Amino acid sequence: MNAITQYSNYKKVLLDASSGDRLAIRRGEYTGSTSGLAPGFVQGNVVILPAAYADDFFTFCHKNPTPCPLIAVSEVGDPSLPELGSSLDIRYDIPEYLTFRDGVRAESLNNLETVWRDDLVTFVLGCSFSFEDALQSAGISVRNIDSCVNVSMFRTNIPTTPVGPFKGNLVVTMRPFSARDAIRAVQITTRLPKAHGAPVHLGDPAQIGIRDLSQPEFGDPVDIKPGEMPVYWGCGVTTQVALEGAKLPFAITHAPGKMLITERLNEELAVL
Amino acid sequence: MNAITQYSNYKKVLLDASSGDRLAIRRGEYTGSTSGLAPGFVQGNVVILPAAYADDFFTFCHKNPTPCPLIAVSEVGDPSLPELGSSLDIRYDIPEYLTFRDGVRAESLNNLETVWRDDLVTFVLGCSFSFEDALQSAGISVRNIDSCVNVSMFRTNIPTTPVGPFKGNLVVTMRPFSARDAIRAVQITTRLPKAHGAPVHLGDPAQIGIRDLSQPEFGDPVDIKPGEMPVYWGCGVTTQVALEGAKLPFAITHAPGKMLITERLNEELAVL
Repeated sequence: MNAITQYSNYKKVLLDASSGDRLAIRRGEYTGSTSGLAPGFVQGNVVILPAAYADDFFTFCHKNPTPCPLIAVSEVGDPSLPELGSSLDIRYDIPEYLTFRDGVRAESLNNLETVWRDDLVTFVLGCSFSFEDALQSAGISVRNIDSCVNVSMFRTNIPTTPVGPFKGNLVVTMRPFSARDAIRAVQITTRLPKAHGAPVHLGDPAQIGIRDLSQPEFGDPVDIKPGEMPVYWGCGVTTQVALEGAKLPFAITHAPGKMLITERLNEELAVL
Repeated sequence: MNAITQYSNYKKVLLDASSGDRLAIRRGEYTGSTSGLAPGFVQGNVVILPAAYADDFFTFCHKNPTPCPLIAVSEVGDPSLPELGSSLDIRYDIPEYLTFRDGVRAESLNNLETVWRDDLVTFVLGCSFSFEDALQSAGISVRNIDSCVNVSMFRTNIPTTPVGPFKGNLVVTMRPFSARDAIRAVQITTRLPKAHGAPVHLGDPAQIGIRDLSQPEFGDPVDIKPGEMPVYWGCGVTTQVALEGAKLPFAITHAPGKMLITERLNEELAVL
C-alpha cells in the first residue's frame, strides 16, 4: 500500500466515523452545537449575503485575514462548496441558521429551503476549533474546553480595516496559559493561518482595550490561575459584529457554536 | 544562470566581503569582539577539552540542546572543522582565547600554538548573534544592540540535565519586546534551533528564579519600556558555568563576545 492510499484510507476512516453526525444535521435531526463533532475536520463560520454586498465583504475578509480567514466562497446562487467537500449543501448542512433583516435578527431556521435566493453568496471562515484541536493534540490543556464552557471573547480597541459598510473593532478570544505553553501555542497556531493563526496579543489586557478579563462580552468567563498569562487570538465574532453594524437588508449566519462541518482535515489547512 | 549558481554567487559575495576580517583574525591582527563582523554568517561559542572529558561534554550538550546547540565537533587532535568551513583552523580563527587550568582562568591568548595538544577536541555551539540578525532582518529592534551594550544574562532556577562533571542551572539571555514583537520573536527564533531556538520563558522573571532584571549576573542591564515584556532564551554561558564548575585540569574557550566566525550562513542553519 503506498503513502497516498494510506492517507486516503486515513481520511476515509475519519469521514466514515463522522457520517452519522453529518447526516443527522443534513436531515434536521440534530440541531445542537458542533463542538466535538467530526474530530479532525475543519469547522467553519458561515456568512451568506446577497451578491450586491459580496464584493465588499470579500474585500473586508481579505483585508482582515486574522479575524476573517476565508476558506471558501461560493458561486452566486450556488449552495455547493466544492472547495470544502464534494457533497456539501449550505442550505442543509448547518444545525441552526440565523437570518438578519435590516441588521436585526429575524428567524432561527434548521434549513434554508424557505429563504434561499438565487443571488446569495456563501462565505466560510476558519474557526478556532481547529487550533484548539491542534493545541490539545500537542498535550496543551485548553481551559474553556476543560471547563466545558464557551471561550471568553472581548471587544478590543484595535480597529479592523473598514470596507464599504463593514467595519468595527477586532473581537478576540482569550485563553490562559503558562508562559511555556503560551510559547508552544504561538508555534502551533502559527501553522494554522486559516484558523486565525498566531495570537494577536499576550499579557496585559489593558494594552488592547480590555478592562476586565472576568467579564467577557461574548462567551463565558474562565479561571486564570496564578502564574498564567492571557493569550488573545483574532475571533470570527469580529465578522458578526461588522455584519450586524452594516445593517444589510438580508443576511444569514450560522447560530453561535453551530458550525459548518467541512470535509477538509484540519491538517490539510496547516502550513509548515 | 540557474538557482544553485545564483546561490553560490550570493554566498561567495558574502564570503569575499568578510575575508579581510577573517584574515585579520587569523593573523592575530584583530583581537576584538566579533559582534557585527561577517554579516550573515553563523558565529559560534567554542569549548576545547581533552578527549578524556569529551564524551561527557558531548552528552551534556545533547541532553541540554537549548542552551548548548552543538553545530560541530572536531576529530581528536584535529584543529579543522570541515562542517563549518573548508579552511577553518581553530588554533588561529578566534580573536582571543581563554585557558582554564583546574577550573581556574589562566592565560589569555590570540592563538593556540603554544597550548595545542593532540588529545584536544573542539566543540562549537550556535549563538544568539544568529537570531538577533534574524530579528533585525524582520524589522524587530533588539534593545541591547540598539543600546550598544552586551545582552543581559541571568542565572535561573531551572536545572540542566547533569552529565558526569558537567551540571548547573540554566543561564538565560533577556530581551524586552512589545507583546506583538514577542509573538514574532517566538516565530522567528523557532526557525533557529541551532541558535538556541524559541524562548524558554516570557513575562514574570520570578517564575524562573530571577530576582531583579536591572541587575544581570552577566552582561549589561537594558531598559524595559512601559508595555514591554521580558523574553528569555537559553544562553551559551550555561556551558561556561558548567565547564568552570567541572574544574577540568585543562580547557580552552573563546573570550566573551569574541566568537568563531564560521563559513555557514545563518539561513543554512534555519529550519522551516
